[in-house]
Amino acid sequence: MQARMPTVPGVTTHSPIIVLDSGLGGLTVVRAIQKAMPAENILYFGDTARLPYGNKSAGTVTAFIRQIINHLMPQRPKHVVIACNTGTALALSALRSEFGGLSISGVIDPGAKAAVTAAGAKAVPAIGVIATEATVRSKAYERAILRRRNHARVYLKPTPLLVPIIEDGRMANDPLVRMALGQYLQPLIERKVDVLVLGCTHYPIFRDSIEDLMGPTVAVIDSAEQCAEDVARRLKVRHLLKPPVDPTDTNAHGWLRCFVTDDPARFARLGSRFLGTPIEQPTWVSPDDLYSAATPAAALRLPA
Amino acid sequence: MQARMPTVPGVTTHSPIIVLDSGLGGLTVVRAIQKAMPAENILYFGDTARLPYGNKSAGTVTAFIRQIINHLMPQRPKHVVIACNTGTALALSALRSEFGGLSISGVIDPGAKAAVTAAGAKAVPAIGVIATEATVRSKAYERAILRRRNHARVYLKPTPLLVPIIEDGRMANDPLVRMALGQYLQPLIERKVDVLVLGCTHYPIFRDSIEDLMGPTVAVIDSAEQCAEDVARRLKVRHLLKPPVDPTDTNAHGWLRCFVTDDPARFARLGSRFLGTPIEQPTWVSPDDLYSAATPAAALRLPA
Repeated sequence: MQARMPTVPGVTTHSPIIVLDSGLGGLTVVRAIQKAMPAENILYFGDTARLPYGNKSAGTVTAFIRQIINHLMPQRPKHVVIACNTGTALALSALRSEFGGLSISGVIDPGAKAAVTAAGAKAVPAIGVIATEATVRSKAYERAILRRRNHARVYLKPTPLLVPIIEDGRMANDPLVRMALGQYLQPLIERKVDVLVLGCTHYPIFRDSIEDLMGPTVAVIDSAEQCAEDVARRLKVRHLLKPPVDPTDTNAHGWLRCFVTDDPARFARLGSRFLGTPIEQPTWVSPDDLYSAATPAAALRLPA
Repeated sequence: MQARMPTVPGVTTHSPIIVLDSGLGGLTVVRAIQKAMPAENILYFGDTARLPYGNKSAGTVTAFIRQIINHLMPQRPKHVVIACNTGTALALSALRSEFGGLSISGVIDPGAKAAVTAAGAKAVPAIGVIATEATVRSKAYERAILRRRNHARVYLKPTPLLVPIIEDGRMANDPLVRMALGQYLQPLIERKVDVLVLGCTHYPIFRDSIEDLMGPTVAVIDSAEQCAEDVARRLKVRHLLKPPVDPTDTNAHGWLRCFVTDDPARFARLGSRFLGTPIEQPTWVSPDDLYSAATPAAALRLPA
């Protein structure tokens, strides 16, 4: 695999990485990228006017993400991360074909890889995945895990209320949160899973509670961290990693610019919980400006 | 008030009523209209690709509903019902001004009127309203109630998880549903409200449980029924009520045609719970076809 990867013309090590999601959850991926590669410049897009993606169809979610990528293409990204499990499950493969010259990755393959590694030497490990309805229905995690380990038992559990509960700002000690987690995790505890994948970028918010409920023998995989490592590897292969900065010099850190389709103030208020640090007010993009027929993917397809 | 109301040109008693909502909830209004006026023809639009509206901003929700009305205008509606409390709270007033010649109504004023009537002769009745975050924040219910009764105590309680819980298909006997209702209604029970308004067209699904929790002295108001009566009154004033049909002749009933922006099959599967009768597969409308700049409200503004 020494073939040189195609690249957007004009891209340099200083070009931004696009991280996109339906809302706030993808900021956990930004946090992991900032930790792994503090020098990188990041454009974050949260499609808050049309969230959530997790209970919508493949056609709809693919159309939304296509619009977002088209909208941000003039920024000449060196890489695009679909930092949303539903978006990865439903749209990654189609959009990779459509945007031929653009490097795009998701969160599912890195999560599946980490799950298989965590399962270790066990002959037939049991791997549980909690995710949105759409991610579960897509069978993307099953495929990604079984491609790496033929002999695994994979249990997928749709957990559709966790995103609304988290977006509502509820904390882990709320009785309703405890009941929802209990209801959702019980069948996976009964099946004695060895590994549990948090198959949605929102879920790391409740990681501690989930680990408590699953018990100390279960490895809990947060796909955000794995995704950041995957992005670093992809950039390195393409010689597009931004040179590391001196971590004592905060001015030398990369920038983060955010875009949202709904209320910027709400995003700034709630986003810091996901990012782990205060977040600047994002720029508002009207959903009308994302109209995809005005900028069809074909018109922007890049030379390979 | 004998002034003749302006009307869309070409409208007759047989013209359809448009009922629109973010998703499924507005079907409770369709059900009430079908019960009150079985002869009427109805076009229902569920914006399932972009639901929910209840946690989004006024600008976003107004833009979405403007697009939907523009899209359906060629059907020459005799009336438009925003069958969504959030949509009514955030967009009704602006869209009434924009679409000058079009008759548009919502669900909040009818609900507020019924609440005041139910409060009866009590000197200072306590009226509770449960609704989405956006509806509560808009203060639309407070204004509508206090316009009719100066001396009322109005308690608004945002209940943002009820729509996701209902859209998830959970039933009233689910422990999580009981806990959520308990958490949300407790402060209203403590304030000894005389009347409780279900300020979201989804909530009638849990009406029995809510009545049980509130106790027999609290009047529970379902704005769907009140909204249907309001529509009937508006059509009657304009001499646009369709002549009543013989209820024994089912062929003489009005038709219902549905449109959605996401998966039609899912809508048909879940919709009958709201409509109370089986529902035909709706027609899919791409969110791209709703691009409002292509058909600005101004271009379609009707002669008064």
